[in-house]
Amino acid sequence: MTKWVYNFGAGHNEGRADMRNLLGGKGANLAEMSSIGLPVPPGFTITADVCTAFYDNDRKYPDDLKAQVDAALAAIEQAVGLNFGDHDHPLLVSVRSGARVSMPGMMDTVLNLGLNDVTVEGLAKVSNDPRFAFDSYRRFIQMYGSVVLGVDHHRFEEIIEHAKMEADVIEDTALTAQHWRDVVEGYKDLVQQETGKPFPQDPHVQLWGAVGAVFGSWMNPRAITYRRLHDIPAAWGTAVSVQAMVFGNMGNDCATGVCFTRDPSTGENMFYGEYLVNAQGEDVVAGIRTPQPLSASVAKPGEIPLEQAMPNAYAELMAVRSTLEKHYKDMQDIEFTVQQHKLYMLQTRNGKRTAAAALRMAVEMANEGLIDEAEAVMRVNPSSLDQLLHPMLDPKAPRTLLGKGLPASPGAACGTVVFNADEAESRAAKGESVILVRIETSPEDIHGMHAAKGILTTRGGMTSHAAVVARGMGRPCVAGAGGISVDYNSQILAAGGKFIRAGEVITLDGATGEVFVGPVAMIEPAMSGDFGILMEWADKHRRMGVRANAETPMDAETALKFGAEGIGLCRTEHMFFDPERILAIRQMIISNTDTGRRTALARLLPFQREDFRQLFTIMAGLPVTIRLLDPPLHEFLPHADQEMQDVADSLGTDVAIIRQRAEELKEANPMLGHRGCRLGIAYPEIYEMQARAIFEGAIAVAKETGKAPHPEIMIPLVGMKKELDITRAQVDKIAAEVFAETGTTIDYSVGTMIELPRAAMLADQIAESADFFSFGTNDLTQTVFGLSRDDAGKFLPAYVEAGILVKDPFVSIDIEGVGEMVRIGVEKGRKTKPDLKLGICGEHGGDPASIAFCEKIGLDYVSCSPFRVPVARLAAAQAALGSATDRTA
Amino acid sequence: MTKWVYNFGAGHNEGRADMRNLLGGKGANLAEMSSIGLPVPPGFTITADVCTAFYDNDRKYPDDLKAQVDAALAAIEQAVGLNFGDHDHPLLVSVRSGARVSMPGMMDTVLNLGLNDVTVEGLAKVSNDPRFAFDSYRRFIQMYGSVVLGVDHHRFEEIIEHAKMEADVIEDTALTAQHWRDVVEGYKDLVQQETGKPFPQDPHVQLWGAVGAVFGSWMNPRAITYRRLHDIPAAWGTAVSVQAMVFGNMGNDCATGVCFTRDPSTGENMFYGEYLVNAQGEDVVAGIRTPQPLSASVAKPGEIPLEQAMPNAYAELMAVRSTLEKHYKDMQDIEFTVQQHKLYMLQTRNGKRTAAAALRMAVEMANEGLIDEAEAVMRVNPSSLDQLLHPMLDPKAPRTLLGKGLPASPGAACGTVVFNADEAESRAAKGESVILVRIETSPEDIHGMHAAKGILTTRGGMTSHAAVVARGMGRPCVAGAGGISVDYNSQILAAGGKFIRAGEVITLDGATGEVFVGPVAMIEPAMSGDFGILMEWADKHRRMGVRANAETPMDAETALKFGAEGIGLCRTEHMFFDPERILAIRQMIISNTDTGRRTALARLLPFQREDFRQLFTIMAGLPVTIRLLDPPLHEFLPHADQEMQDVADSLGTDVAIIRQRAEELKEANPMLGHRGCRLGIAYPEIYEMQARAIFEGAIAVAKETGKAPHPEIMIPLVGMKKELDITRAQVDKIAAEVFAETGTTIDYSVGTMIELPRAAMLADQIAESADFFSFGTNDLTQTVFGLSRDDAGKFLPAYVEAGILVKDPFVSIDIEGVGEMVRIGVEKGRKTKPDLKLGICGEHGGDPASIAFCEKIGLDYVSCSPFRVPVARLAAAQAALGSATDRTA
Repeated sequence: MTKWVYNFGAGHNEGRADMRNLLGGKGANLAEMSSIGLPVPPGFTITADVCTAFYDNDRKYPDDLKAQVDAALAAIEQAVGLNFGDHDHPLLVSVRSGARVSMPGMMDTVLNLGLNDVTVEGLAKVSNDPRFAFDSYRRFIQMYGSVVLGVDHHRFEEIIEHAKMEADVIEDTALTAQHWRDVVEGYKDLVQQETGKPFPQDPHVQLWGAVGAVFGSWMNPRAITYRRLHDIPAAWGTAVSVQAMVFGNMGNDCATGVCFTRDPSTGENMFYGEYLVNAQGEDVVAGIRTPQPLSASVAKPGEIPLEQAMPNAYAELMAVRSTLEKHYKDMQDIEFTVQQHKLYMLQTRNGKRTAAAALRMAVEMANEGLIDEAEAVMRVNPSSLDQLLHPMLDPKAPRTLLGKGLPASPGAACGTVVFNADEAESRAAKGESVILVRIETSPEDIHGMHAAKGILTTRGGMTSHAAVVARGMGRPCVAGAGGISVDYNSQILAAGGKFIRAGEVITLDGATGEVFVGPVAMIEPAMSGDFGILMEWADKHRRMGVRANAETPMDAETALKFGAEGIGLCRTEHMFFDPERILAIRQMIISNTDTGRRTALARLLPFQREDFRQLFTIMAGLPVTIRLLDPPLHEFLPHADQEMQDVADSLGTDVAIIRQRAEELKEANPMLGHRGCRLGIAYPEIYEMQARAIFEGAIAVAKETGKAPHPEIMIPLVGMKKELDITRAQVDKIAAEVFAETGTTIDYSVGTMIELPRAAMLADQIAESADFFSFGTNDLTQTVFGLSRDDAGKFLPAYVEAGILVKDPFVSIDIEGVGEMVRIGVEKGRKTKPDLKLGICGEHGGDPASIAFCEKIGLDYVSCSPFRVPVARLAAAQAALGSATDRTA
Repeated sequence: MTKWVYNFGAGHNEGRADMRNLLGGKGANLAEMSSIGLPVPPGFTITADVCTAFYDNDRKYPDDLKAQVDAALAAIEQAVGLNFGDHDHPLLVSVRSGARVSMPGMMDTVLNLGLNDVTVEGLAKVSNDPRFAFDSYRRFIQMYGSVVLGVDHHRFEEIIEHAKMEADVIEDTALTAQHWRDVVEGYKDLVQQETGKPFPQDPHVQLWGAVGAVFGSWMNPRAITYRRLHDIPAAWGTAVSVQAMVFGNMGNDCATGVCFTRDPSTGENMFYGEYLVNAQGEDVVAGIRTPQPLSASVAKPGEIPLEQAMPNAYAELMAVRSTLEKHYKDMQDIEFTVQQHKLYMLQTRNGKRTAAAALRMAVEMANEGLIDEAEAVMRVNPSSLDQLLHPMLDPKAPRTLLGKGLPASPGAACGTVVFNADEAESRAAKGESVILVRIETSPEDIHGMHAAKGILTTRGGMTSHAAVVARGMGRPCVAGAGGISVDYNSQILAAGGKFIRAGEVITLDGATGEVFVGPVAMIEPAMSGDFGILMEWADKHRRMGVRANAETPMDAETALKFGAEGIGLCRTEHMFFDPERILAIRQMIISNTDTGRRTALARLLPFQREDFRQLFTIMAGLPVTIRLLDPPLHEFLPHADQEMQDVADSLGTDVAIIRQRAEELKEANPMLGHRGCRLGIAYPEIYEMQARAIFEGAIAVAKETGKAPHPEIMIPLVGMKKELDITRAQVDKIAAEVFAETGTTIDYSVGTMIELPRAAMLADQIAESADFFSFGTNDLTQTVFGLSRDDAGKFLPAYVEAGILVKDPFVSIDIEGVGEMVRIGVEKGRKTKPDLKLGICGEHGGDPASIAFCEKIGLDYVSCSPFRVPVARLAAAQAALGSATDRTA
């Protein structure tokens, strides 16, 4: 015989905390609390298997369920000395749903079940409080009526409002027993009228009605949608817990409350919670009366803490708190009720917390010996670290929303609106805080983005230029705010009838994507010592290296500060937009001879050499991976007429030539165009100049410091082994030249990005010519999905919303598709070279779920933007510790 | 002991025709001919293994090689009764290279080896012809000097020219023995001067020099490049054949000639060849004297056929011809020499032939019983069929080249130049033959392309819009002629200093990519009965179906005529560019409400329904696969200012709205943008309209003909199973509606293109929702390589030329990368549904090598443009017969 029902309480606990899959979170924890001696009213849990059987068997219960429920109910009756449906001493119960994970859309709770027109009189008599009895009855009808019978809950509230109007009172508490009797009559009429049937009087009918409503709600549309979005199998089902009622609303020696074993906002080790005297659970959250604090130490004048009102119950609760933390080894979120000075525990679960609190609690609990360091590392959600590293809006500050975009780069920023990069730079130079507002940004805007406190764009997605660059710089950014329009001519920003002119102030919240009118008060990040401690523990436990994507000395220094162990991606093209350099680049592009291009490149050489010299110096002793020129040449040419004229003037050439070259270089699909190693093959002089700059820079550092850097030179967009052979030969040739010229030889590696499906499929061949691979999962995502990240903004959000995609694949790696391609690349690469060094340098290198995947397939390191380095360190540690990152909320 | 040397001739033949890998083509066939009793001068072949051993062993010969060569040489001496280096009766030999495949760049032939200052006198004496002897000696020095010693061959020719000037004669034949003695002296001085050493006098040194030159040429740069481009392993090596000389230049009873056992141009079963009296082999091809015909029946007045000049040798040759064809069962290309009325065979091999000849010979040989039908099918190169289906330029017609582009669509066309589609249409309507010249074409040019006799573009590759559409229409097209410039304003086409104005005539050769000034005479295709017979035989032997990519009734009819077994791809968007329809499409695009879009689509419905009704009627009983709308919406909007204004006027709206919508829809990478099923998901009304048109059209045909079509509805660009689920549900919903409305139900399938790497990787999931897959290898090639076909023209040709890519992957499927992805898709799809119907509908569906791959991985059918259907039928048959398509040249 299958066991469908598990008792708990009154010394007979058939469940345990680890039976959450069978009993739901609530049921499992009630049994567990009872087992460790905490005061839990007795009850039983109908297992989630019943739910599954119910749906597998055409919505019929297992034959032997009723008998098991009857037996369990009898056990409660015996434990509390009351009988279900008894006219004089009626047992009342609560019925609650409980799946293995908390799930909105499910029926939640029905209290006071067992009351009817007869038992309510018994309750009135035995409690000697008719008002309590009828208030309880009306609460029951209201809850049961709305959640089981489907009557709109507003209709019930109208009846109370009507009663208060008639009685000429304002508060519910002013209603008398008779008033509640009348309300009960009104409720019953309403139910009859809405459902065509009288309110059920038989407690057993009530019970099975409530149980059926819980199981029924498992398949309601909201629950189905939620499960689809969160990949929860319908087969998990939900459990139902039935428990003897205790009453917090039986008089002034009764109370009900919720509390956390530590402060969920700060993590401080203090008891945090609130309670109401003479109330039932839902009153605490309803906000009709003001809850009071638990501890005397935090009570404000006029407040009556539980410690003072009910000292015994308080003392007992403090003991419970300590027991629970020791038992669960985590901060608990507790519900309790005091009935006539006696404490009862109704629920416990791991409490939700802020990032700061999670961090502090993890470190403190480890220091207290409650958990070990590895467990502490597992306790902090890596993604939440972002909150700790950037300024935040003060949650209490007033604000006016202008519009919303994508939370492209975390942190808050406040400043005057400017619409172009030059102005941003010049105003910032005068000490002004500015927000750079653009329809979209391009590499030419980088100096303005750098000068700005924050960036707002109205086009583009999470991996648009603005978003990627802003994250790299640690600048808050709201991207693709489609509801906001930008008019460069009139210098106005408009949304929903509000207009912001250039020079007026806005505030961005890069963590939520919100844009506010005017300034909003902010809280600066407090990098507590706990942060450093946790990071140290994380570093002890991780296997993968963490590097940063960085080009500038500032980026490199930031990366080092955050604990990066080298540079995983230095995008050399980002070094070309400085005004002194862009001219030489453009000169190279418009040259149509090899000689002309070499002349222009010769002008760039000293700049590039100095770039690399600085990076090698900062990253002393750490690896630096330098990617040779990647983007198509047209990205470096101006497009507006005036800009073209300016460039023509600077280069002393005819604007027609610039225009013609720009026209020639135009591409239908630049992402799939003449870029990456295809440039290096068409114009060998480009990679040769870059290789020379790298070797000369490295040798300069070797001579200055006596310690030679080991440059890792990376060829982008390889799809065929021969492409790597040809470009690698260019690099080797220059290396030999520079070594001969300088009389110094250094070690270097040449590897490739694996960022095309073909490269992954043929990684075994490509590995023959590569010293390392770095998976460029940004571009790989674009090609595997056939999805341009610049254009995806138009439909990708709708895809995520409709559940076609669970997550934006540019944010978190698509494990089934893109990930599988990476896995193939790893397998084939290592087949050829078992010790091939493997990393990832796409945006995914800073995403915890993606990092867990990288650990699983055995990469050697991840590389991410400098500000994501702590996130990556923690995520890598958690991945190594082999557990899911969603263990804490 | 390894056998390094194989004798042939004089009754001792150690080789056979099937030992081509070891003995090379020449050596193997010499032995074979000798074995079957044909008159072959005795000789021996040094195996290709010696070449391999030579390179494996630091360019040293195997120790025992010399002894084996000496023995073989002795066998020749004995057979012919002459001795190598003998002063009175010297044996002379030829030395020839011979790899298993014919390979340019290799050393070819040295004749008369064994002559020196002494033996030449012996030869003069024994032949009683000093002029012959010294002519032979100077020929030997000239050949040996240039190919073995590396002296520029022009330097030798200068000496002859000088001698002729001094002698005051014009023809070589007028030089006397003394003149040739002087030339020999001059040659020897030249060799001394150029090499610093005297010309080698020792015949053995000469022999090893020539053998070494053959092996050395295996590793010369031209040979290496050729091998790289043709995937020939260096390890194959080359063989060397050494053979006793016979002399066609020993007097007027001597001759030399080349012939084919059938006419290689027409395939006619007649003896075809030419000869020269008193000449050596190279004189026939040198063109100094006019060769004479072999047979009397084809001799023109004044010509002296061999049949008349040497009737016995001719009769013997006729017998040889018959023996060889019966033995080799294929048309042979023969070299012979007659020495003093005695016939000697010097070479035989399968002869190269035109497409027409290959076809005729294959059919006739099968009818003669020489080969069977399957072998006949294998004998014709499918790609060559194109030549038979289109007009060709008359090879004899004079022509002036203007420039060259890609051979984008075969056939020749001649007409007046027009620069826009409307004008092409209006002039063509008046009966004028026009060539449409565009920088590149777009869907808006289709009516003009259709009206034109041929299309020329200056941009774009083999799969550019112009190329794809032209092939589909069977219009000759030269694409991407980068050396030709087009100026729309001045209406001038310019290249290399030549200018062609609008209205002037040009001629295109779509098979070579050449563009000629003015008209060039053409030959119309003669679709002989042989073609039909061979196609029937091919159909008997193929496993895969062959369908066509077709949208218009004309395309569908052409496809049927060429033997298509259904439509594999009907691209519905091609139906939208008709002026009546494009307006409705544009109205839909600029509507920003669901209702507005539905109204516009309702106007399109009757057109689409009629489209499908016609296709179903033409394709009665055959499957029709219809792909729902695929391209991004901006492809349907105008881009030029005036056009925008016109559209605004037609739609009665403001041009600003058109402009804004065009701006909104603009994409950075349209290939990776909002297209395919992403449109169907964003705007369900589009696919719903198309589905309705399909079902209503099909039901109309069912009612008219009593036979219901079975539409196969294909969803493009699916990357996730849910995309297919959603769009499939749209189709099913409309099917149910139409079936209810009409009271008629028909069978239909819903499937998807597999054209994204992700779709291939997750084909197992996608197959759950698909009735069929059609591999869209055009787009798959773009995403697997990260290569836009619109932009690839800038560097792909250079890649192919440099051998980075062996073939343009848009023309012939990249088996290692794209093909592997398709293979994975097939494997995963069939894992879920073992009987899943699988086809291919990219351009590769008409490429023989790709078709062979499709056969190998088990696809059910290929689909290609109507004009490629015969090619595909033949290629599919050859693939099924399990042999390489390059079996005949």
